[in-house]
Amino acid sequence: MYELGANRYGKSRIRLVTVDRSMDRHEMRDLTVDVSLEGDFTAAHVDGDNTNIIATDTMKNTVYAFAREHPTGPPEVLGLTLARHFAAYPQVDRAVVTLRQHGWSRIPLASGGSPDAFTRSGDLTRVAIVAASAGGATVEAGIEDLTVMKTTRSAFTGFERDRWTTLPEADDRIMSTKITAVWGYGETAAEAGFDFDAAFDGARTTLLTVLAEHFSPSVQTSVWVMATAMLESDPAMDWVRMVLPNLHHWTVNLEPFGLDNPDMVYVSTTEPHGLIDATVRRSA
Amino acid sequence: MYELGANRYGKSRIRLVTVDRSMDRHEMRDLTVDVSLEGDFTAAHVDGDNTNIIATDTMKNTVYAFAREHPTGPPEVLGLTLARHFAAYPQVDRAVVTLRQHGWSRIPLASGGSPDAFTRSGDLTRVAIVAASAGGATVEAGIEDLTVMKTTRSAFTGFERDRWTTLPEADDRIMSTKITAVWGYGETAAEAGFDFDAAFDGARTTLLTVLAEHFSPSVQTSVWVMATAMLESDPAMDWVRMVLPNLHHWTVNLEPFGLDNPDMVYVSTTEPHGLIDATVRRSA
Amino acid sequence: MYELGANRYGKSRIRLVTVDRSMDRHEMRDLTVDVSLEGDFTAAHVDGDNTNIIATDTMKNTVYAFAREHPTGPPEVLGLTLARHFAAYPQVDRAVVTLRQHGWSRIPLASGGSPDAFTRSGDLTRVAIVAASAGGATVEAGIEDLTVMKTTRSAFTGFERDRWTTLPEADDRIMSTKITAVWGYGETAAEAGFDFDAAFDGARTTLLTVLAEHFSPSVQTSVWVMATAMLESDPAMDWVRMVLPNLHHWTVNLEPFGLDNPDMVYVSTTEPHGLIDATVRRSA
Amino acid sequence: MYELGANRYGKSRIRLVTVDRSMDRHEMRDLTVDVSLEGDFTAAHVDGDNTNIIATDTMKNTVYAFAREHPTGPPEVLGLTLARHFAAYPQVDRAVVTLRQHGWSRIPLASGGSPDAFTRSGDLTRVAIVAASAGGATVEAGIEDLTVMKTTRSAFTGFERDRWTTLPEADDRIMSTKITAVWGYGETAAEAGFDFDAAFDGARTTLLTVLAEHFSPSVQTSVWVMATAMLESDPAMDWVRMVLPNLHHWTVNLEPFGLDNPDMVYVSTTEPHGLIDATVRRSA
Repeated sequence: MYELGANRYGKSRIRLVTVDRSMDRHEMRDLTVDVSLEGDFTAAHVDGDNTNIIATDTMKNTVYAFAREHPTGPPEVLGLTLARHFAAYPQVDRAVVTLRQHGWSRIPLASGGSPDAFTRSGDLTRVAIVAASAGGATVEAGIEDLTVMKTTRSAFTGFERDRWTTLPEADDRIMSTKITAVWGYGETAAEAGFDFDAAFDGARTTLLTVLAEHFSPSVQTSVWVMATAMLESDPAMDWVRMVLPNLHHWTVNLEPFGLDNPDMVYVSTTEPHGLIDATVRRSA
Repeated sequence: MYELGANRYGKSRIRLVTVDRSMDRHEMRDLTVDVSLEGDFTAAHVDGDNTNIIATDTMKNTVYAFAREHPTGPPEVLGLTLARHFAAYPQVDRAVVTLRQHGWSRIPLASGGSPDAFTRSGDLTRVAIVAASAGGATVEAGIEDLTVMKTTRSAFTGFERDRWTTLPEADDRIMSTKITAVWGYGETAAEAGFDFDAAFDGARTTLLTVLAEHFSPSVQTSVWVMATAMLESDPAMDWVRMVLPNLHHWTVNLEPFGLDNPDMVYVSTTEPHGLIDATVRRSA
Repeated sequence: MYELGANRYGKSRIRLVTVDRSMDRHEMRDLTVDVSLEGDFTAAHVDGDNTNIIATDTMKNTVYAFAREHPTGPPEVLGLTLARHFAAYPQVDRAVVTLRQHGWSRIPLASGGSPDAFTRSGDLTRVAIVAASAGGATVEAGIEDLTVMKTTRSAFTGFERDRWTTLPEADDRIMSTKITAVWGYGETAAEAGFDFDAAFDGARTTLLTVLAEHFSPSVQTSVWVMATAMLESDPAMDWVRMVLPNLHHWTVNLEPFGLDNPDMVYVSTTEPHGLIDATVRRSA
Repeated sequence: MYELGANRYGKSRIRLVTVDRSMDRHEMRDLTVDVSLEGDFTAAHVDGDNTNIIATDTMKNTVYAFAREHPTGPPEVLGLTLARHFAAYPQVDRAVVTLRQHGWSRIPLASGGSPDAFTRSGDLTRVAIVAASAGGATVEAGIEDLTVMKTTRSAFTGFERDRWTTLPEADDRIMSTKITAVWGYGETAAEAGFDFDAAFDGARTTLLTVLAEHFSPSVQTSVWVMATAMLESDPAMDWVRMVLPNLHHWTVNLEPFGLDNPDMVYVSTTEPHGLIDATVRRSA
């Protein structure tokens, strides 16, 4: 009478820091890893038969052990190794490994960056999402938690006005958002030799440069302008998806206090917020 | 060269409390509402043309205004009214309204529950997800943030053991999870007269009763057992999806201190956690 | 030229769940424990000499080991045992142990509450703060995270009006707050036999009853009314401190939509919030 | 029978962004402000008489209005203006204004930093705490949310070992903490002309430089070494208080997998954590 539909399971929030001390100038990397598997797990659900179950504790062990072999380098490379490992179990159809790399910077000293002391930079999180199956592997990369603000060259006019509309038109408003952007690399990126770090740095630079320089008639248009520029700048990228909250900044009414407010004092809010979600891809 | 793919936009985290004071015994409801629209918004993205854009501020206004007409009652009913309103705009193909109802209980007094003073109960969040389009409306309901624990009748044995496995078999472990469950009602539920409150209460009662009473050989089996019982108890339900973190409780090793630990002292953890996600549906 | 001022150190967020399975009806308790020590630790700071340092890892071990002996019962009793243990180290002048007990309820079944399945109730956190030194021990108890709302019998009028005031007087407003309340028991409470559970339950009942029934001309007055009632109801209590955010609920202006709003639709906010902090004590 | 003890009230989490557009290169500042007042508020508590109450809504208005006059510049200067304003009400004995400044950086472009587009830097929060009364004003400054890591030159040995101790001695461990540091400026700092920005930058640079370069035998000693260096570098500073969680990084045991782990793979944790809190001051 009942049947199992879509299902997956795995281990989330595996926290690991790896340090390469082989040279005086240490390298470190701070990751949070999620593993998720799809495959032949019907018996585990329906019959209570765990034969096919790879324990999520085993997934955690595997992440730590594989990190021993790949202590530094792009998260995508560790992700590919892990995803292919899990996809090789016969009962697994698809393994998805998501790696979030938390940013750290060397502490600046008079002599340059410290060789072994770091501060969490916190301006964005780098994401890598690797999926592997018998048919091969795909790699997505992205940015989370990148909060930005434009203090001009943002407007919102000409929108639908009806009985429920009170928002005034705005020729020059603050635009602020916390960017989540993910993009897909084509099939060849999973092959050895693709420079994931350079691709990530290029994508971030293009995104931020266009964000700073373009005129935004709406958050929707900003997605289009940033995403097409990113696709333009890197032929390895097939598509870009952005999810952008509109973090409203409202001009405070100072008239009751006998003061004007020439776009100078804003109340910053997070609740409620607009939320714009769109994917831009190369035309077929 | 580029084209717009999947896209939607809306307003998230619209917070509202409504109070019905028409009788001495007040009724109140505490909601967080998200609105999301899909439709003909290509020009807004590609051409910077906002003609078709319903401002997210307008969505917020509409939610508050419609709540004036529906201050109490099941969140699904307010959601249906809102989703059908937004779907009626010609440029909208699909409107999704998600309502999270935060639990409040009357403060207990010697004379019974207070007529006008409440405590946030915080044991779960009730969710309603209503989607409307020209073709009609669908209603999903669910539970979030329901943290539970079984102190016995949970085991995990017979799973795959390989080089990376160190987890011992467990005949009697603590099972703890924070339940997210969503279920879909069939088409007729969107018609007037369906008792969403009774259906929700029934689903919650079945879920909790089965959770308490069943023997769990794995979280996966627990999903199957709870979901099939829910489908069995309510013919209006088409499918149930559960997303269950496995909040591990590890037995503390007290041997270094000359003490045994007969399954008595556990360290409670949230990071990392297993994550089991499965849907159970009626067979075709 | 420099000297060490006030200092303390310890272990925070020690998470533990204890289960008593000695009867069919299991008892469980969920605690987060912080330990903090003051004493002769100058050499550790100034000279890098750790001789006097009790490692915070040792504190964690001790908490788990002592919980083996006290798996259930009032958190104050475990706290007294721990605080006296740490205060007995010669280098320790004062040990403070803070225990937060997270609420769980038995899952209701047709046959009554489940013997071994629980839901996190989440309506409040019970706090115990025990301090021990050579001179004896003191015990404080409290409540955190208790969110409440009064839908009438709350006003705010007659306050100072000056150039910077725009708030209208309110005869009948929503009052909502997230209560933190802490109270001190007199010296005899640390002696064996004091019923901490009964005292806590009594304090909570008095607080909630008075909260529900009183007329509030301001949050400040509410503190006074609730605290004096608590002191009145339990002679063991020496003082009560409350810290109450004022979680504003603003009446939505629906006039632009041709609707009235007879105190029915409110926008619920948390930022910014008023914050009222006051202690009430017995007169000397 | 009862009396009012210590009490204060105010407005917390007033969020404001100010922009100076008077030149092509915009300046912006992002603050969260808390205001708290102490004074003659007994009647408000005991008698329900709000005559002396300055509404917290009025405090919010005042912060926005005064920010109109001080849109940029050190937060301490806005704080002094606000604190003195509130302290001038006859019923106020002491006004404390706490300002948290959230970091933003100009988006880097080929031509230099953008004149009007910014990213939230997120590496630390700058804090200013200004207190004013009839007797004058005091200014404290500080740092919050500065997460740091040393991958060497940190040890923890020679601590007390007893029945409850299992922690091994560590000659070379990771040290990681999330720094809260606050320091007090002497009385003259409240006078016009003190360069709060330069003092803050100097304090941060000294703190980070010493953190990177010193050998840490314990977190306690690190506080002493960093704080004395800060006092040494700025004679305006009277004292420094640091509150440092010890964010433990545990070496993963890879032996079950036939691998060594030469201080390379760590599990990063936040719960439980050590917590070290100490103040260092100039000797009398």
